[in-house]
Amino acid sequence: MTSKVTPWEVPAKIDYEKLVKEFGLEFFSALPVQFSKNMLFRRKIVFAHRDFARVASAVENRQPFVMMTGLMPSGKFHFGHKMVAEQMIFYQKLGAKVYITVADVEAYNSRIPDMGQLRTTAIEEYLMNYAALGLDLNKCDFYFQSMRSKDGKKSSAYYSLANMLARHATFNEFKAIYGDISPGKMASALLQASDMLHPQLPQFEGPLPVVVPVGCDQDPHLRIARDMSQRIKAFNFIQLSSTYHKFMPGLKGGKMSSSDPTSYIALTDTPEEASKKIMKYAFSGGRESLEEHRKKGGNPDIDVSFQMLKFALEQDDEKLNSVYNDYKAGKLLSGELKQIAIEKIVLFLKEHQQKMQKSRIAVEKFVEGQGF
Amino acid sequence: MTSKVTPWEVPAKIDYEKLVKEFGLEFFSALPVQFSKNMLFRRKIVFAHRDFARVASAVENRQPFVMMTGLMPSGKFHFGHKMVAEQMIFYQKLGAKVYITVADVEAYNSRIPDMGQLRTTAIEEYLMNYAALGLDLNKCDFYFQSMRSKDGKKSSAYYSLANMLARHATFNEFKAIYGDISPGKMASALLQASDMLHPQLPQFEGPLPVVVPVGCDQDPHLRIARDMSQRIKAFNFIQLSSTYHKFMPGLKGGKMSSSDPTSYIALTDTPEEASKKIMKYAFSGGRESLEEHRKKGGNPDIDVSFQMLKFALEQDDEKLNSVYNDYKAGKLLSGELKQIAIEKIVLFLKEHQQKMQKSRIAVEKFVEGQGF
Repeated sequence: MTSKVTPWEVPAKIDYEKLVKEFGLEFFSALPVQFSKNMLFRRKIVFAHRDFARVASAVENRQPFVMMTGLMPSGKFHFGHKMVAEQMIFYQKLGAKVYITVADVEAYNSRIPDMGQLRTTAIEEYLMNYAALGLDLNKCDFYFQSMRSKDGKKSSAYYSLANMLARHATFNEFKAIYGDISPGKMASALLQASDMLHPQLPQFEGPLPVVVPVGCDQDPHLRIARDMSQRIKAFNFIQLSSTYHKFMPGLKGGKMSSSDPTSYIALTDTPEEASKKIMKYAFSGGRESLEEHRKKGGNPDIDVSFQMLKFALEQDDEKLNSVYNDYKAGKLLSGELKQIAIEKIVLFLKEHQQKMQKSRIAVEKFVEGQGF
Repeated sequence: MTSKVTPWEVPAKIDYEKLVKEFGLEFFSALPVQFSKNMLFRRKIVFAHRDFARVASAVENRQPFVMMTGLMPSGKFHFGHKMVAEQMIFYQKLGAKVYITVADVEAYNSRIPDMGQLRTTAIEEYLMNYAALGLDLNKCDFYFQSMRSKDGKKSSAYYSLANMLARHATFNEFKAIYGDISPGKMASALLQASDMLHPQLPQFEGPLPVVVPVGCDQDPHLRIARDMSQRIKAFNFIQLSSTYHKFMPGLKGGKMSSSDPTSYIALTDTPEEASKKIMKYAFSGGRESLEEHRKKGGNPDIDVSFQMLKFALEQDDEKLNSVYNDYKAGKLLSGELKQIAIEKIVLFLKEHQQKMQKSRIAVEKFVEGQGF
């Protein structure tokens, strides 16, 4: 039995140590120096991995590798998504070819039957934000599950891999991961495995290290893709690498949910909306009374404003540490901590939304060029 | 409960009347005059249909329609396959665009894991024989399930249809047809439904009548494709049409089996091999003794030599009838009937194999042009 870790548990309750043991993951030991420049790795928000050594080695020796990830085109692009985007951009700068799949077939098969709406959301919400955050679209392979490539040999290879992988797993294996599996879920699951593995096909990059950064709830998907990749003899897949990041808490302390706008801050929220959301909803780690807070101190580990600084807004470790310590010591009040987060987020959103406007034309050109 | 009609039942035992009722098929009534020129329709070897009226109407009004069929690239091309090829050629001459899929993904997922071998068999056995029989390759859309098209939009549309159809059926529906279903069978089944339906996608012909000629054991595949086609709202599929042909008996009277060369005559068997096979194996409808045969007559309905004349070798209905009557009356002996079949088959194979040699270059050019 695996733990039931789902994104909607309260993050503070997740025992990541236990998870690593149960899933058979590993904590990072020595990483190439470049990784210390990345906040998510430095702060152990990206906290564990499988088979990361060959990716680290590719980075050190400047050898080709791929970073592969996906997006589910539903709802607004929020800070949870941003954390993944930051990893894309980081790996791209390290020299990775970045593969990004829009899981529109998966979305169609699970909830949203309007393919046109899925396409619009993917471009307007995700691609626009990626570009504004600094992703170089021209060095990406950004594609839709429903429309892989203008090149038919590439498209066919991608889809046929999914269909051939089907031979190499049982229903029980899929059921263990996906629960009550339907034909639609089955098709999506196979396509997801091909998303992860197809960069190594001869029609794409050929065998090379591929890293898939995921939340730790996603590990079962990795496991089945890894199993199938070693069973299929028609190709020589190098085993997948993966990294695991912690869950960014939702505004109210629970899960971040696309269907509940009070659970997240979207990167297209106006600075005013964002400020109000933090004031009104951000879960506080403070004490019941001012007096008690001054005396016993607050708990930054469950305070969402602090977590936002840690996950996204405060790049400077020293400053983050002093906020942490001040809050814990009762020197910093909850309202003051919220104010720090608000100032940071207002600044970020203003700049980011300007960048979005500036990158619109480039995104439109890219989309046109791809023929989506 | 549907009848368990499988290709390996003795054909004489199949009650086609009952089958038509149980499956909800229809016998042909009035057909356009062109169909009377086709031996398979005239002799009611193609004996029933679903929704054929719109195909008949397209033929009469010279409107576009598609004939779709598939081949499983295993073993030799034999007279059972020829019967399907004759239908392709007939429809092509009537103006149909002919779609032919090589079910290599299905073959991979069910038995033969060597994609290279599947490709070779499809070209050397099937395509070569199709061309020699008179199929105009340049008016076909001949493709592999694993490699749909050089055009990525077409490829993606074909595979994505399979993945989207998955949403519109349940596992129980697939189980009812495929029995103990595995992920591999599931993927193949969805691809097969897309084979039948994708000609109507905007990237291909758009909505139009599509006729799928099958053996009556294949009707469950048609039924599930028909059901899914009407449930999926993303496309406006015209309901599939289908025709049902009787089973050509195997040489020894039972099933024709690719794994048993004494059960069929391949179109690449030498005339000598073919003659020997008929002499040695062809199941006879004759009586135990010559005397009894002369007195009571033979049974042409179970005599394989006669069935070969009826299904393939004797184009002339009058001649076929006189053979039938003479045999039934005891005037024609079993050895004599075999001799008639042998003469016909020797003549056919000699001519056919010359045609195969002549069409080799055209086939190779076609294959090269398609980029298989």
